Amino acid sequence: MLLDAVEGTLADFLAAQIVGLDAVDPALGSLARTTRDLVLAGGKRLRPTFAYWGWRGATGLGEPLDPALPALAALELMHTFALVHDDVMDESATRRGRPTAHRLFAGQHTRAGRLGDPGRFGTTAAILVGDLCLVWADQLLARAPLPTSTLFAVRSCYDRMRVEAVVGQYLDVLGESAPDEWSAERALLVARLKTASYTVQRPLQFGLALAGPVAAEIDDAYGRYGELVGEAFQLRDDLLGVFGDPAVTGKPAGDDLRAGKPTTLLLLARQLAATPAQRALLALDPAGAVNPADGSGGLNPSLISELISETGAPERIEAMIQERVATAVTVLADAPIEDEARTALVELAVRATQRPA
Amino acid sequence: MLLDAVEGTLADFLAAQIVGLDAVDPALGSLARTTRDLVLAGGKRLRPTFAYWGWRGATGLGEPLDPALPALAALELMHTFALVHDDVMDESATRRGRPTAHRLFAGQHTRAGRLGDPGRFGTTAAILVGDLCLVWADQLLARAPLPTSTLFAVRSCYDRMRVEAVVGQYLDVLGESAPDEWSAERALLVARLKTASYTVQRPLQFGLALAGPVAAEIDDAYGRYGELVGEAFQLRDDLLGVFGDPAVTGKPAGDDLRAGKPTTLLLLARQLAATPAQRALLALDPAGAVNPADGSGGLNPSLISELISETGAPERIEAMIQERVATAVTVLADAPIEDEARTALVELAVRATQRPA
Repeated sequence: MLLDAVEGTLADFLAAQIVGLDAVDPALGSLARTTRDLVLAGGKRLRPTFAYWGWRGATGLGEPLDPALPALAALELMHTFALVHDDVMDESATRRGRPTAHRLFAGQHTRAGRLGDPGRFGTTAAILVGDLCLVWADQLLARAPLPTSTLFAVRSCYDRMRVEAVVGQYLDVLGESAPDEWSAERALLVARLKTASYTVQRPLQFGLALAGPVAAEIDDAYGRYGELVGEAFQLRDDLLGVFGDPAVTGKPAGDDLRAGKPTTLLLLARQLAATPAQRALLALDPAGAVNPADGSGGLNPSLISELISETGAPERIEAMIQERVATAVTVLADAPIEDEARTALVELAVRATQRPA
Repeated sequence: MLLDAVEGTLADFLAAQIVGLDAVDPALGSLARTTRDLVLAGGKRLRPTFAYWGWRGATGLGEPLDPALPALAALELMHTFALVHDDVMDESATRRGRPTAHRLFAGQHTRAGRLGDPGRFGTTAAILVGDLCLVWADQLLARAPLPTSTLFAVRSCYDRMRVEAVVGQYLDVLGESAPDEWSAERALLVARLKTASYTVQRPLQFGLALAGPVAAEIDDAYGRYGELVGEAFQLRDDLLGVFGDPAVTGKPAGDDLRAGKPTTLLLLARQLAATPAQRALLALDPAGAVNPADGSGGLNPSLISELISETGAPERIEAMIQERVATAVTVLADAPIEDEARTALVELAVRATQRPA
């Protein structure tokens, strides 16, 4: 019901933007339609969901949903911005089992212009689609009928969330570019910024701010729950990035290994590796990787994932996930929030960290 | 004095962001410092200037400047976002005589990581710097102490401006990618969206909204003045892109021609070209361009700029500029605004359209 309402709010907003831009130039209408398809292509809608329960935790189920919808749906438009730009940076070919934005636009570039490079046109159009979604998110957020002080609190939380998402992504990319300088601590910092803050913590606090004057005790509980569940969510992602089923995750197997992502899982496996040969393999250096079994070279994701399993790192990561979820549930038990929200947030903590994709 | 105050506001805001991000991770502090240097690297500060006079036009010189400064300076942060992303899309090497953001970051990528591609790291970091500037602009704007209704009007104008800048850039890039489908009308539409609206019209109206309840007569006058001066500004840009002095403009000579930009100037020259051979040269197709003088091939910017001159297109463009500026001055003469603002806006119209760079 919540998700249907969010989809409806997004669909209505996007339909109006399409009409407006079509009137300026048909090429802009087409840009808006492609953007709409990307926004409405599915996804878990985790941020509106956490924001919704953050809000319900303070208001209970009595409060009407309608006035909160523009703000909840804005988080999803903002998320499309983040995904589209991330996919450009990672040069990803697919997202949610479909072509990524830059690939879609490269494909639309059927006539080679003077510049003749569909890839470059795709990148350019995708950067602009991301920018457009970020501005549209602000326009949708502005439609939430809120008192001034509430609006300030909501926007201030939203701004913090956006900065953390951007700088978290920067650190993530820096880690891929200079993996030797990386540490398990820095990998967890990326998880805290990019996943905990952006996916769980700030959406919850954003929802709380929507409910009116912020109760510090709830804000604090959401902050701690969000950090724990967000980290656990990222640790699950680490495991899925290596051991996930491509048919379920929608991403090619071993993608993280090929990208050289210095995840907590990988850094832990390196620490636990018994022999120098194993550590050399886990350095993910295509030049230095030699298969101890047959002496062959090159990066072999299935061999490396087997080796990661042998180190025992996956079990430790599983334990870290369980520990975080358990602590998060305790934090909620003590928080002065409505019971329906507590139940829902416990369920969400489990669902977000035990998922197959 | 205005510009010093804007620089000071930007410098203070950026210094605080650097301290905050440094505390999270030194690499983020470094990202923030590089971003600050890009923002403070100069530029004409046209948008804060137009916004200032848009505001003064309604308030007169008596009103204190301080409360308006965060909003005026926010326009410049937003402009850095646009420049940094534009430079990524255009793959420009320099801006204001210095390396562009993506080149700077590519240069910082001294250790080749696994991905080993400094260019790709530069692009990624520059996309994120642009994103960061867009969010920072919102945070700075939020510091303007404004009544709720004023804030809504200001933000709504700001959002419209940002959408127009983004879709204008999309149309501009589309024009470069498919120049055969382009027309002088579409080139003027790009000028209206990307330059008139984004540089003059909306900043003026943004300033007016800052002054409090919006007088429709002034809003309308600013809209017409902005469209005229903005178009004239872009037409001057077209001329500078072909005939400008690289030492003054900071851009290589013939850049627009090499990029195949379907400007109003070029499209007009094509219409006016007397012979099929001239038209073929003005198609800017490196394959089809044959020098009628000696039969040699390839795109020769100085030959093409000479040909453009011969068609008489530059004189017509000059006339279009003069006509627009003259009409804009008439619009101002009839507008119910403060005299100091009228005088300043007449001067700005002339300065923005008669500039050497």
